[in-house]
Amino acid sequence: MNQYSQKSKEELLALKEELEAQYEKKKALNLQLDMSRGKPGTSQLNISMGIMDTLSSDSSLLASDGTDCRNYGGLDGIPEARQLMAEMMGTLPEHVIVFGNASLTIMYDAISRSYTHGVLGSTPWCKLDQIKFLCPVPGYDRHFAITERFGIEMINIPMNEDGPDMDLVEKLVSSDAAIKGIWCVPKYSNPQGVCYSDETVRRFANLKPAADDFRIYWDNAYAIHHLYEDNQPEILDIISECEKAGNPNLVYEFASTSKVSFSGAGIAALATSPANLEDVKKQLTIQTIGYDKLNQLRHARFFKNLDGLKAHMKKHANEMRPKFEIVLDILEKELADTGTGTWTKPLGGYFISFDSMEGCAKKIVEKCREAGVVLTNAGATFPYGNDPNDTNIRIAPSFPTPEEMAQATELFTLCVKLVSIEKLLAK
Amino acid sequence: MNQYSQKSKEELLALKEELEAQYEKKKALNLQLDMSRGKPGTSQLNISMGIMDTLSSDSSLLASDGTDCRNYGGLDGIPEARQLMAEMMGTLPEHVIVFGNASLTIMYDAISRSYTHGVLGSTPWCKLDQIKFLCPVPGYDRHFAITERFGIEMINIPMNEDGPDMDLVEKLVSSDAAIKGIWCVPKYSNPQGVCYSDETVRRFANLKPAADDFRIYWDNAYAIHHLYEDNQPEILDIISECEKAGNPNLVYEFASTSKVSFSGAGIAALATSPANLEDVKKQLTIQTIGYDKLNQLRHARFFKNLDGLKAHMKKHANEMRPKFEIVLDILEKELADTGTGTWTKPLGGYFISFDSMEGCAKKIVEKCREAGVVLTNAGATFPYGNDPNDTNIRIAPSFPTPEEMAQATELFTLCVKLVSIEKLLAK
Repeated sequence: MNQYSQKSKEELLALKEELEAQYEKKKALNLQLDMSRGKPGTSQLNISMGIMDTLSSDSSLLASDGTDCRNYGGLDGIPEARQLMAEMMGTLPEHVIVFGNASLTIMYDAISRSYTHGVLGSTPWCKLDQIKFLCPVPGYDRHFAITERFGIEMINIPMNEDGPDMDLVEKLVSSDAAIKGIWCVPKYSNPQGVCYSDETVRRFANLKPAADDFRIYWDNAYAIHHLYEDNQPEILDIISECEKAGNPNLVYEFASTSKVSFSGAGIAALATSPANLEDVKKQLTIQTIGYDKLNQLRHARFFKNLDGLKAHMKKHANEMRPKFEIVLDILEKELADTGTGTWTKPLGGYFISFDSMEGCAKKIVEKCREAGVVLTNAGATFPYGNDPNDTNIRIAPSFPTPEEMAQATELFTLCVKLVSIEKLLAK
Repeated sequence: MNQYSQKSKEELLALKEELEAQYEKKKALNLQLDMSRGKPGTSQLNISMGIMDTLSSDSSLLASDGTDCRNYGGLDGIPEARQLMAEMMGTLPEHVIVFGNASLTIMYDAISRSYTHGVLGSTPWCKLDQIKFLCPVPGYDRHFAITERFGIEMINIPMNEDGPDMDLVEKLVSSDAAIKGIWCVPKYSNPQGVCYSDETVRRFANLKPAADDFRIYWDNAYAIHHLYEDNQPEILDIISECEKAGNPNLVYEFASTSKVSFSGAGIAALATSPANLEDVKKQLTIQTIGYDKLNQLRHARFFKNLDGLKAHMKKHANEMRPKFEIVLDILEKELADTGTGTWTKPLGGYFISFDSMEGCAKKIVEKCREAGVVLTNAGATFPYGNDPNDTNIRIAPSFPTPEEMAQATELFTLCVKLVSIEKLLAK
């Protein structure tokens, strides 16, 4: 039995000494590794280099509807880019507006617009005393940063294996008109890799919010970001489920090619009901004369359609899978049966979510940093950076090479063991 | 003497009959011409096609500081793009952030941010009862649309030949803390083509606003958009003038390559003081992980520096100049000495500003439209679309071909004459 909690004080002290020696050795290597952000690695970026040759001065730069992509205009995006992004999200092009390079900006602007002008004619949020958002946790720090910036009170919602705790979501949303939204990453959630079940999606579509201007902020960031070919969960299309439920305006869906083509130079999209689109365009028509249509054209011509996207994502999976497997193998080898932590084994997305013993996450991250391995700040996966149990750590395997990931994960497991022992000894 | 106001009723009636016959003939041509928007023509867009070949899969996609332009990051923009945009604006790269494809979006976001979060720590405008902006008129309709969207009261400021009426600007800005900004197009103003004199720029830099969060919104849209090689007015750098005056934070300057490279796919920039930049970045760091750095790199490599930009703008001038001259020649030939209107003769920019007899602009635009020539709506150059004298019409010669511009302007002068005669006869 290797459970740390079953070991005697003497055993723990002996183990500690041994592990500390290993830690000092690792430290002496002066590692400089970053597994903090969901950032594609160089080999992944290289996969998309063909996109750089898609348009040249010899190309026709007219969109399929005759729009000159070089000139002003085209608030909705060009038809072929709307089609491509619709296919990626599993919806129809008439639900889609294609924007610039970042879905994060679309989300920020959606909150900012609701704050300044309300939602489909509702009172602007800046005129209300209190606005609340539901935040499934652990979740994506940049979502929480947006709501925090606007002074929106964030309420933690526990995540289950099939999505957020829907009993709690339904109860809160239907009873409190100050609750205006919920952040969701429905597929390969950040950081756990959870995929919402059909029942979860349907319960979302059938919510009966107390607030007319409540919206589901459905960040479909990893719609096609599978790790395996033979085990690819699909989630229901939230937009048509909302239509069926008689709630067509209930959801804003976001997606981008940031982790398909280039993170800094992709295209992003919003999908929602015709009424919501009209509402959004009241802002867009003042804010821009149109987004970068040449980059939209570049993407549409390069990827062509969903099959093109899928074939491309296989190449990404081939780069990502070994890194995930290295992390998972080392976690298994080093920590299984120790009782010092649990972790997720995602089938896609960009993260592995690790839960340490209570009160250990911050110390583990700090100990890793001291030895040259940067992890996402402990707490970052919770609103206000506050993980009430101090357990969750997000591991992002994409940026380092497989060799670096192995080194980093070995150090990580060492730190987990050391901090856990310190906790057990302090009892 | 050809002054219409000096003609007898009989003379006017005879002339009217003759002009109406000409108008019907023109109408029968079924023209479909648009001189409403400051939109580059196809021949101008063709000038920049080399930009499509600047980057390919063989190119290094690293910025000069080693940043991989394909990946996330780089909130300020890459160094070479900051340098390029700084040179275009006549300021230093440390004052510059490079954004996405539209300066309009930077301006909208600046107003929106002030509304939600204030300016450098001031009270957010949404918490104040009244916000006012000064609007030199005639001016740019899209500026006015932004302020109108946020419920900001707009106050007309007359334009003189050397810029806005600074006596009035100084008086209002120093006495009313509800006045938070003024929209300026300091060089080749939209629509008059006015260039602010050194004295005007210095008086701006030395304003003593009653409101701490007052800013000059300096839209330097036409900084390098000259029509002639031998007559190129230069304006003072507002940022260094503000520094000299001890008001470093007084101005936000905006510019873009929308009318240099491609209108839909250029790069845009903000230039301002370090303190203002930090304030803006508090938003940006939540709103985006960075703008499209590949397009920044493409622009920096293609244009290289200010000399490259200037050489490129000569080609634009060669396309634009004939169109402006055709309009001006026809206006001169048809309307000089008639007393039916006055117009500007700009040395750069995108517009000619025409002033009809009082109460005639709307009717002229309508009459042109009936015969297939679309002009900017009369009134559009004033806040709320309300030109108090109904005189101003903005002519945008860029999009049609020279032949089309000749046809459109001939029709325009015909409409000016007819509407003027109707007004004189109605007296």
